[in-house]
Amino acid sequence: METESVTETDRCHAKAAGGIYAPGCPGRLVLDRIGDRWTVLIVGVLEHGTKRFSEVRDAVGGITPKVLTQTLRALERDGLVVRKVHAEVPPRVEYTLTEFGRSLIGPINGIRAWAEENMDELFALRARYDEAKTSDQ
Amino acid sequence: METESVTETDRCHAKAAGGIYAPGCPGRLVLDRIGDRWTVLIVGVLEHGTKRFSEVRDAVGGITPKVLTQTLRALERDGLVVRKVHAEVPPRVEYTLTEFGRSLIGPINGIRAWAEENMDELFALRARYDEAKTSDQ
Repeated sequence: METESVTETDRCHAKAAGGIYAPGCPGRLVLDRIGDRWTVLIVGVLEHGTKRFSEVRDAVGGITPKVLTQTLRALERDGLVVRKVHAEVPPRVEYTLTEFGRSLIGPINGIRAWAEENMDELFALRARYDEAKTSDQ
Repeated sequence: METESVTETDRCHAKAAGGIYAPGCPGRLVLDRIGDRWTVLIVGVLEHGTKRFSEVRDAVGGITPKVLTQTLRALERDGLVVRKVHAEVPPRVEYTLTEFGRSLIGPINGIRAWAEENMDELFALRARYDEAKTSDQ
């Protein structure tokens, strides 16, 4: 006889308990994953379809193979990406967003678009703040 | 005579140059800022109006005063939050999203909502993946 176990997330999932605002809610780990700069950039590449490792690497300028491997593995582990190895010589390895992973496209594109559209403004405001701080002293 | 200086972001901002996908594009630092778990949670509190430091601290369960101070200062530096000190004893310090900061509400709520709605699914898929890996060995 099996008893349904209480999952780690139960205690924070209920709105009454404060959801992701409850101390220690593991949903914050999910935020870390999906808000990560590499996740954002990689999902933005895979949303256009299945890609080989080298295609993702070339599309995300400056990413190291190590970081790309780690990020893809984390996404695969969380059911967001599927990795398929084709038995060729050399083996062809391809990555595809799962349906679950595709549900991330909208939210992730929202923050990527914001960053692209507003970075000039943000850096200008930052420079102005730093200047004001310096002249205060 | 002033010459318009080329900003740090110019070289990656143009779509032709790959935008945020260009190696070393500083827009990635913006992603780090807005994708940060504390930014996400704090913006979700301040969207409802001006708050005192203690109110934000109490709303974001488990945040340390140090991390809250650092995050609010970073948001202020980037023109996303305004800090106002009222001359009272003890001084009352209040934080408000600027208009620029309010433009973040939509994108940030998108990823926070995704995390809240999908964390159970994500952790279940992660557990299944780990189990499969273990039984492979």
